[in-house]
Amino acid sequence: MMAYKEASPSAWEAAATAKRQAILNAIPAKWRIHDPLPHCTEVRDVTGNYIRRLLTTREIEITETDAVGIIEQTTSGNWTAVEVAEAFCHRAALAHQFVSCLHEVFFEAAIETARQLDAYFVKNKKPMGPLHGLPVSLKDQFHVRGIETTMGYVGWIGTFEGQKEDPRKGVAESELVRELWNLGAILYCKTSVPVTLMSGETANHIIQYTSNPRNRHLSSGGSSGGEGALIALRGSPAGFGTDIGGSIRVPAAFNGVYGLRPSSGRLPYEGAANTMDGQNTILSVVGPMATTPRSLRLLLKAIISQEPWNYDPLALELPWRDVLESKTRKLIWQSGTSKSLAFAIMRHDGVVQPHPPVKRALYMIEQTLRRQGHKVIDWNPPSHEKANELAHKAYNLDGGADLLSHLALSGETPIAQCLTKAGDHMNAAEIAKLNVEKRQYQKAYLDYWRSTVALTDTGRPVDGLFCAVAPHAAVIPGQYRHVGYTTFVNVLDYPSVAIPVTYADKEVDPKESRTDFLSEKDKEIFSDYDPEIYDGAPVGLQLVGQRLQEERLLALAEYVSEVL
Amino acid sequence: MMAYKEASPSAWEAAATAKRQAILNAIPAKWRIHDPLPHCTEVRDVTGNYIRRLLTTREIEITETDAVGIIEQTTSGNWTAVEVAEAFCHRAALAHQFVSCLHEVFFEAAIETARQLDAYFVKNKKPMGPLHGLPVSLKDQFHVRGIETTMGYVGWIGTFEGQKEDPRKGVAESELVRELWNLGAILYCKTSVPVTLMSGETANHIIQYTSNPRNRHLSSGGSSGGEGALIALRGSPAGFGTDIGGSIRVPAAFNGVYGLRPSSGRLPYEGAANTMDGQNTILSVVGPMATTPRSLRLLLKAIISQEPWNYDPLALELPWRDVLESKTRKLIWQSGTSKSLAFAIMRHDGVVQPHPPVKRALYMIEQTLRRQGHKVIDWNPPSHEKANELAHKAYNLDGGADLLSHLALSGETPIAQCLTKAGDHMNAAEIAKLNVEKRQYQKAYLDYWRSTVALTDTGRPVDGLFCAVAPHAAVIPGQYRHVGYTTFVNVLDYPSVAIPVTYADKEVDPKESRTDFLSEKDKEIFSDYDPEIYDGAPVGLQLVGQRLQEERLLALAEYVSEVL
Repeated sequence: MMAYKEASPSAWEAAATAKRQAILNAIPAKWRIHDPLPHCTEVRDVTGNYIRRLLTTREIEITETDAVGIIEQTTSGNWTAVEVAEAFCHRAALAHQFVSCLHEVFFEAAIETARQLDAYFVKNKKPMGPLHGLPVSLKDQFHVRGIETTMGYVGWIGTFEGQKEDPRKGVAESELVRELWNLGAILYCKTSVPVTLMSGETANHIIQYTSNPRNRHLSSGGSSGGEGALIALRGSPAGFGTDIGGSIRVPAAFNGVYGLRPSSGRLPYEGAANTMDGQNTILSVVGPMATTPRSLRLLLKAIISQEPWNYDPLALELPWRDVLESKTRKLIWQSGTSKSLAFAIMRHDGVVQPHPPVKRALYMIEQTLRRQGHKVIDWNPPSHEKANELAHKAYNLDGGADLLSHLALSGETPIAQCLTKAGDHMNAAEIAKLNVEKRQYQKAYLDYWRSTVALTDTGRPVDGLFCAVAPHAAVIPGQYRHVGYTTFVNVLDYPSVAIPVTYADKEVDPKESRTDFLSEKDKEIFSDYDPEIYDGAPVGLQLVGQRLQEERLLALAEYVSEVL
Repeated sequence: MMAYKEASPSAWEAAATAKRQAILNAIPAKWRIHDPLPHCTEVRDVTGNYIRRLLTTREIEITETDAVGIIEQTTSGNWTAVEVAEAFCHRAALAHQFVSCLHEVFFEAAIETARQLDAYFVKNKKPMGPLHGLPVSLKDQFHVRGIETTMGYVGWIGTFEGQKEDPRKGVAESELVRELWNLGAILYCKTSVPVTLMSGETANHIIQYTSNPRNRHLSSGGSSGGEGALIALRGSPAGFGTDIGGSIRVPAAFNGVYGLRPSSGRLPYEGAANTMDGQNTILSVVGPMATTPRSLRLLLKAIISQEPWNYDPLALELPWRDVLESKTRKLIWQSGTSKSLAFAIMRHDGVVQPHPPVKRALYMIEQTLRRQGHKVIDWNPPSHEKANELAHKAYNLDGGADLLSHLALSGETPIAQCLTKAGDHMNAAEIAKLNVEKRQYQKAYLDYWRSTVALTDTGRPVDGLFCAVAPHAAVIPGQYRHVGYTTFVNVLDYPSVAIPVTYADKEVDPKESRTDFLSEKDKEIFSDYDPEIYDGAPVGLQLVGQRLQEERLLALAEYVSEVL
């Protein structure tokens, strides 16, 4: 374990402040906001009309079109890549000034890329690729040539992942980024993360805190919190986050957008920065976030078309399977017949009951599914408490040594929500034991899922599982106490898509009176609920599928979102 | 680290002897050999006519038919399952008495299964499944209900994996076994392994030493050495081994049979005993061994048809891909044209030069490929020494603690070829570092493989890589000094099939005169070569493909075997 470097607090604070100012300075003067933002008690929600005030009608039209809609325009030559890029750069600039969601801003380079794309289109009468002219935002773990990656560490400023003299500094490019360029996407910004990445809120000494744009009292979630906030503000149509314990689904749900955590091996992680790289009990995965489910499909399918398995040794040779998708769509068309779909709903995980807005969202889903004629069964799986325990052991294999060593580079102080406490390393035998326990848990869950064939009347086990993403809507800062609703999916390595369902509403979601607590944590989280503060916060749920069945899951997500 | 239990040597020796006798006693009296086997200096090779003497013409016909040929007869009702089972039980009984290759013998149960299969066929006029009536042997890691698994540990006798009171004792069944029953296979014996599994020779205190049936001076290889020897003697048409560092390919090559090490996730390991279970830097994998390459395909395809991913959480949802196979076959039909196949040959791994018989095998392959019109390129990959170092670190993560604890159960003495020395555990950060280094190595190799597109004239990178399986033919006991020829494949997680090519021949493979040694190990292994002792030993090579492309690789292996 490295000791903290003896550094003057002012040195790292100054470095963080300078970087924060540099991000702001990278925003063109014409897009800078000079009046201070009103306090959140005055303006809770900065999405919608609040941000539209500062945009032209044309910019609004472009930025409120989803990714699929945008490429329809750009690949047919109706919209130029430059006008699309400029509109999103402008809106992203505003978004950052509202909620502090960007770590890197490279609008000029983006507009230059857009110019080249337009020239290509004029010359060749065809798009560069399936994402021609689509602005795509990236969580600040992905390396883009010429652009810094800090991942929220002050000690990474001016370095390559903390190494000052590393030859990759300034030239490294993550595999995902290479593929996005190939596809014709436009990269223009990198989004904020919590320092260490291990947090459900986004805070670090550089960008300070990424607030929730729908309700600035609350968190944008984490660790892909900048992505969630930026997409909610329509400063990006779609982007990529990563998820080792909920880091895509949490910010998607908290910000009212869609996010897919695929199974590991579907999308390339190669060449991205990470926390505790090489921990392979639970792998972090890359996944898309967007304003519509069809946009998630667009991004996933586009990246898979690049055959990442030829470039990333951990990516699986699994091309996009149209047949899985079309079979699912066929089942969807049969809705209401006896051969139709069946779902499970998990009302709580045995550890913590969700807050009233989340319960209402589950009820809404259940009513919708029943109305569509689908069988809905209760979910009585192997212990989710156990899954959460396994996950936490995996996250703490090295006792926080990796995180602490990166904090120590600058001597920056830890941030309450983000620090894993220094502990002991697990040794090889302990890790092997954990891996066996995890596999046994996965086996029990697989057997349980399969066993539901007896309950569905479809001849198949349930097609998907709905459950909470967190016990609460977008959380009150400092009150994220239970991540078990997302971590079980990482233990299982199942795909899961976060779907926006409703908004917390103080009128219809009053505080309950409960005395039947599942645990101490349940009691604590119950008492955290404040209808007044939560009012207006997005509530998302997750739809969980079986391992590596992303094509099926996204077709279901699209369907459910339509009927909801 | 557990200390050795204070046990009287006679106690564990007696237990091992009793178990050895029990295996023998399970062989029906009519199949017992009463005359002692002549010394290996007198009868070197016990395959072919030596074993045929003791079999009827009908038994020879059946047992010298490959797995595909057998199921053609059993699924059409030409041969009964009972006569097939009896013929293989008889021949396996002889094989064991020649080379000590069986850990468990359950012929009566097998013949009862065969009777049920025959009754099923008579009643339903169709086979039970695609492996109807096929005897399949299993390495003694797989649990079969009612049958013991010792994995060569004296301390496992009468227990479940060393635990006396474990409720799984006597009832556990590995997922592979469940699927084999479903497919209509007949299980009848379990084959010998080196204690600890971590050895290229098969030795333990129970069966003592599994000799090579082609040349009893030599080893049958390991760790699936019993499988290799049994299949070489045609005591089994096909079986399953496991491979974490060469344990399928080594005994396949040493015994002149075929063996496939698939990529991890293709075949189910669920519910099998293992060494250092939960070590997940390099996963051991299950793979088929057989007398023909089409039999490997039969077994792989049959198991995959059972959808193991619905039962094994680590199995991948990758159905058998006919399209990969048919594309490859189409390329094969174009042999000799400019769009045809291209291969690489690695003459040595930069660490150790192969012995003359292995060099000749490489030359034979090269001539064959060139004659067929294929381009053959040299292979200049990332350092194989590095790969071997990474593999050894992975095998020793726990400093041998797991192995030693199982030896300590009985107090049995270690066996020279099989013991990993007691060392320190690696901690979480060291393991994570190793995992990163391994991934970087995989990435470099993937990039190198892809780069060969510039050399092949086919528009694709090389279709396969040929190289040695070991520096030597079936090794002289105690002289297995370099496993780097197989371990690099495990580091890369590539599929690889061992293909029998020739036999060592003292006339055409004299000792070379060399002074240009690659390493100290090279010098030592050079001086190990003894044309007289090696004479007659099988020499196999491996054909390595790209990750998860088993369908493609087996089509190539079938083709190469035909033209060889």
